[in-house]
Amino acid sequence: MDTKVEQNGGSIPMEPKRDFKSGQDEGKTSEASKVPVAILGSGDYSRSLAGRLVRSGFAVVVGSRDPDRNRRLFPQGAEVTTRQAALSGARLVFVAVHRENYPDLQQDRDALAGKILIDVSNNTKLKKDGESNAEYLARLLPGSTVVKGFNVVSAWSLESGLFGGSKEVFISSDDAEARRTVMQLAQDMRFAAVDYGSLRAAREIEAMPLRLLPSWHLALKMVLCVLTFYVLWNVYRGVVFYAVKSGDNYAAHIPIHQVNRALGDTAITTLCLVYTPGVLASFAQLYNGTKYKRFPNWLDKWMRARKQLGLLCLFIASIHACLSVLEWSPAYGYDRLFEKTTVNANGDVVYGMMRWSGETFLLFGTLALFLMAVLGVASIPSVGSSMNWREFNFVQSKLGWTVFLFAVTHCSVYVAEMFIESYLFTSYTPPAFYIDLTLCAVLLLLKIVTLLPCVSSRVDRIRRGWERKAPKAGKTNAAYSKEDPEMTSYL
Amino acid sequence: MDTKVEQNGGSIPMEPKRDFKSGQDEGKTSEASKVPVAILGSGDYSRSLAGRLVRSGFAVVVGSRDPDRNRRLFPQGAEVTTRQAALSGARLVFVAVHRENYPDLQQDRDALAGKILIDVSNNTKLKKDGESNAEYLARLLPGSTVVKGFNVVSAWSLESGLFGGSKEVFISSDDAEARRTVMQLAQDMRFAAVDYGSLRAAREIEAMPLRLLPSWHLALKMVLCVLTFYVLWNVYRGVVFYAVKSGDNYAAHIPIHQVNRALGDTAITTLCLVYTPGVLASFAQLYNGTKYKRFPNWLDKWMRARKQLGLLCLFIASIHACLSVLEWSPAYGYDRLFEKTTVNANGDVVYGMMRWSGETFLLFGTLALFLMAVLGVASIPSVGSSMNWREFNFVQSKLGWTVFLFAVTHCSVYVAEMFIESYLFTSYTPPAFYIDLTLCAVLLLLKIVTLLPCVSSRVDRIRRGWERKAPKAGKTNAAYSKEDPEMTSYL
Amino acid sequence: MDTKVEQNGGSIPMEPKRDFKSGQDEGKTSEASKVPVAILGSGDYSRSLAGRLVRSGFAVVVGSRDPDRNRRLFPQGAEVTTRQAALSGARLVFVAVHRENYPDLQQDRDALAGKILIDVSNNTKLKKDGESNAEYLARLLPGSTVVKGFNVVSAWSLESGLFGGSKEVFISSDDAEARRTVMQLAQDMRFAAVDYGSLRAAREIEAMPLRLLPSWHLALKMVLCVLTFYVLWNVYRGVVFYAVKSGDNYAAHIPIHQVNRALGDTAITTLCLVYTPGVLASFAQLYNGTKYKRFPNWLDKWMRARKQLGLLCLFIASIHACLSVLEWSPAYGYDRLFEKTTVNANGDVVYGMMRWSGETFLLFGTLALFLMAVLGVASIPSVGSSMNWREFNFVQSKLGWTVFLFAVTHCSVYVAEMFIESYLFTSYTPPAFYIDLTLCAVLLLLKIVTLLPCVSSRVDRIRRGWERKAPKAGKTNAAYSKEDPEMTSYL
Repeated sequence: MDTKVEQNGGSIPMEPKRDFKSGQDEGKTSEASKVPVAILGSGDYSRSLAGRLVRSGFAVVVGSRDPDRNRRLFPQGAEVTTRQAALSGARLVFVAVHRENYPDLQQDRDALAGKILIDVSNNTKLKKDGESNAEYLARLLPGSTVVKGFNVVSAWSLESGLFGGSKEVFISSDDAEARRTVMQLAQDMRFAAVDYGSLRAAREIEAMPLRLLPSWHLALKMVLCVLTFYVLWNVYRGVVFYAVKSGDNYAAHIPIHQVNRALGDTAITTLCLVYTPGVLASFAQLYNGTKYKRFPNWLDKWMRARKQLGLLCLFIASIHACLSVLEWSPAYGYDRLFEKTTVNANGDVVYGMMRWSGETFLLFGTLALFLMAVLGVASIPSVGSSMNWREFNFVQSKLGWTVFLFAVTHCSVYVAEMFIESYLFTSYTPPAFYIDLTLCAVLLLLKIVTLLPCVSSRVDRIRRGWERKAPKAGKTNAAYSKEDPEMTSYL
Repeated sequence: MDTKVEQNGGSIPMEPKRDFKSGQDEGKTSEASKVPVAILGSGDYSRSLAGRLVRSGFAVVVGSRDPDRNRRLFPQGAEVTTRQAALSGARLVFVAVHRENYPDLQQDRDALAGKILIDVSNNTKLKKDGESNAEYLARLLPGSTVVKGFNVVSAWSLESGLFGGSKEVFISSDDAEARRTVMQLAQDMRFAAVDYGSLRAAREIEAMPLRLLPSWHLALKMVLCVLTFYVLWNVYRGVVFYAVKSGDNYAAHIPIHQVNRALGDTAITTLCLVYTPGVLASFAQLYNGTKYKRFPNWLDKWMRARKQLGLLCLFIASIHACLSVLEWSPAYGYDRLFEKTTVNANGDVVYGMMRWSGETFLLFGTLALFLMAVLGVASIPSVGSSMNWREFNFVQSKLGWTVFLFAVTHCSVYVAEMFIESYLFTSYTPPAFYIDLTLCAVLLLLKIVTLLPCVSSRVDRIRRGWERKAPKAGKTNAAYSKEDPEMTSYL
Repeated sequence: MDTKVEQNGGSIPMEPKRDFKSGQDEGKTSEASKVPVAILGSGDYSRSLAGRLVRSGFAVVVGSRDPDRNRRLFPQGAEVTTRQAALSGARLVFVAVHRENYPDLQQDRDALAGKILIDVSNNTKLKKDGESNAEYLARLLPGSTVVKGFNVVSAWSLESGLFGGSKEVFISSDDAEARRTVMQLAQDMRFAAVDYGSLRAAREIEAMPLRLLPSWHLALKMVLCVLTFYVLWNVYRGVVFYAVKSGDNYAAHIPIHQVNRALGDTAITTLCLVYTPGVLASFAQLYNGTKYKRFPNWLDKWMRARKQLGLLCLFIASIHACLSVLEWSPAYGYDRLFEKTTVNANGDVVYGMMRWSGETFLLFGTLALFLMAVLGVASIPSVGSSMNWREFNFVQSKLGWTVFLFAVTHCSVYVAEMFIESYLFTSYTPPAFYIDLTLCAVLLLLKIVTLLPCVSSRVDRIRRGWERKAPKAGKTNAAYSKEDPEMTSYL
């Protein structure tokens, strides 16, 4: 591989691959294509970066304090030399050193002047205030153009292929031209470059790798609260109450029986939580008479958590199904759903089949679970991205409400069978499924209202941009288009 | 499509789209980079488009009728001004207005002349005949160059990242140069541009967002027919017959017992439907003596539905497995698969284990299901695209036929155990599994024939391009290469 | 962000990033864009290639020996002509003919001189020695520049869209400029081009399509060995021993009961195999005092198999769960986990519930399985690529060890209940779960050692690059950064 560095100074175009030749330029172009990209630093990240650049067809020169020792650590095709030599030929310089070593770079101030420095650094902790690493670097080296980028890409991503789509790389710089140059570089390295504007945005970009699944926080909190509530409720009614009242110890049945009841209650309640914000948003739009008014903040956040709520619902419903199968026997209070098992004259046991209620109960639960699994599969990014908007909407909205109706049927059959039992209120509290079904009933009622012709036609008009009156200045926003109330969006 | 070849020898640059600067142009380049892309219209789509362009590093200027009111709706970085001002500096103009407002654009005819207009419009209904929106726009503004594109991308996709791979964007225009310019623009916006040729193709492109899972229609119809047939057959034999004959009411066992039997029958029949067209195609090729003759239309469509049939088979087999577990007891007619449960001297029940037939029956069913799940996972686009052709073929063909053999074994063990029972033909009809297994046997026999050395060597030669005789003109086609009869392709 | 609009009229290039042609070049550019790409050969691959090029906006000209006959086989937009005519206008030539026909190309030696030939050929068998097809072609046509590439892309991939991300295409050539030109071409065809350096690498590139899931070989071998061992062990203890000792025949219970035991043992042992190499690597780094020393070869390979081991563990644990549910009854030796089922005065059977041990046993097993399924979903490429490094690490490491602890609890509860039974050592061998749990205990102990503050702080320092002493030359390597011992990486 050709790694010889032509040292032609700053006037040489920095793009190694492009520059396409017309015939007469060919000599010049080949020269240009050898203009290397420099990397300062010889750590792991530097090495992975060098490898990716080489595989993307760039000439790479690494500036190291101890080139002889470090040479063997770098992939074939990358030249390892002194900092001074590395900088002389390059126009684009990756700064792959720790922030605490930035001041040392001032020694090379002159060699770095006029060049584009790409700050790839990350922090180990979120800095609440103060400047980003990139801004600090720009302050130290005012003669260079600093661009923030690539920090969201790990050494591992640099070394691996791109199955599952290109990683996004966020670029910011105060120099628009430098930003575009580095965006082009990122694309040539098979990343998807996103323009984040001025260097101040580096604060936001540096915070990204420190995030821990932020889109899941709200949904997880909601589901954990619901689950805790139902576990406590069911344990009180099924264990604590009897322990206090009659001294019976049913604690042995917490792990499966009470937990499983709570999981079922949580699953259907979470399903309500998925579909409620969309219905509320419709009412908000009807009330506002426009879609350009911002939703209350809580509603906005709730709508953005619907995908995660849906996936958590699938997770919980799956565990519920598994535990239900394991306790599926007349022993566990399901005797009303089974015919009696008896002993015949020969002393053989003759098993009872399920009643119609047991079979219907199971069928709808099973169908709801497997249709929800289809929704889950459609939420896998590469599956969802192969659908058009109409298809995605069909799957998430039509199929989603079908799942809801099946789940409500599953729950209702069970309740209908248990309704008449006298012990329902024995613990001075209703069973948890009363709470679930009340939530479901309210949601269904509200949904039916939005489907009434007179209401739905007005909602449709509003969503197409119609407004009852001109919005007052300062209250409108553009945030809405991201979230469609009709969508129950698992994606 | 422009395919005329200019024969200018080697001195002409071969790259149609790029054309990079050499050093001395650099000043000019920075200027060029500020030339903005214009957007006409200020609806949701316009705003999402502006955001994506800004994030992709473009200067954006939005032409609005009421710029002061709309400015705040647009993302930072996009300039909102009057139509006239927006058009003056741009060469590329997104037309993000409704078709019914196209005539209004004629007011700006002069400002739009010589520019490339990108028609992003969609229709709410499929237009059977008549011109596309893009052709209509081209007719209204003959001085401009109209390019169709981006309509398949929703506002949501514009605003979101690209997890799961870039969305494809289909571009058509009568001007090849304009088409290439817009394709480049699409790629710079991180979409994958596909050239659809002349503007007439806009009719096809405008129909795309109105599609509702067309690749699933045939498979869904086939599976629904099969399922309905088996449900009716099983309900007749298990419920209707006894109701009429002896007045016994077994309707309570429809939801699980009869539906589950029908699901099992449907799953194995669907598996046959997955593998049958590939075998038929081999025979068609043997008969034709060439692979260049078009298959009958029905076979072609069937082959293209194999992936969907396979996924529906997995869906149905999963539900069948879940319901089977729930009814897995001697009560449900499986007493031949269990040893007797008895009562011992203490009055305790001593449960019977399964016989060898019960255990074998379950083992093969379980293995078939989980291997089929592996096939399903390999059908996820980002998983499938990480495999080479040989690996994909191995998974879909070798593993697929293993699933089929395991499923047939599962079914056969059950049948073998039930075969001798006298009540099999009591309803003057055979049980449904006779039908399944007959289909399986026929398919296996045909498959074995294609595997005979004399047959398979000829099929291989044909697939490598050998022909018994030169094809007659007008009967050949190139459609075949897309569908490989050997592949049972879930992808 | 720079949004100022320069109003310079129509002659200014509109593309911000690419430096497109300014006005006066326009004529030249349009001309250039018509310079076609040539394809030699008219087989299936040639046709798919032509289609992809046309859809990517290229002018395509196909050189065929019999253009009149083959024209109709090619997609609209591709010109089919004689070889001589096709070559005259092109500079880039795809050579889509079989290796055995390469010598025929020497007839067109002059027309091919100075052009870039892209060798897309594949072999049907792995060639142990000798030159690659591309080197052979370069030897036959010394006047042309040969580039290897595209052979990893099937005709099917060429014809289909890019759901699931672009396919990678590996490019090698001795001419760096030609390599870059073809890489650009590949990217314009919506593939991701990877630079593989000189033409000698074509040997490696040509071997790629012949690979059959090489990353799975080691993991599959390990798991199959473990599974075979446990099946034999369980069949000996549960069937062979009793057959020999007392003549009892328990063979009927091999398919579910003994296989399922073996699957459970295999699942937990495989989980140990996933987490062991990471712990061993930590100790190796502690011992070496640096992270720059290469791990022993076996450890390196083992670490690279962790993802596959994890997915196989999920597969086996799922089957184990399904079979367990099917045999979940006191009949199958689980009577210690159930209360007694009795017969009441009416002759009705009163089912016993599970004891606390049975419920706990099932709960932890179920939770371990479904959390492992979450890890499996995070291993889907398009899901994993949407996470940052911290998130990925959290899911694979934190969640992974949680799964391990739950699985160990599941196993321990069962063992605790069975521990006291006198028949444990009746066959002169311990039950298999003794082996599992011993492995788990050793692994847990080692893991706990690495978590001790004094040890973990030193490991952290080593991983950040600290070294106890300068490494000796010749013993260091860069391979390490790819595999992080902390990661149990299912991805």
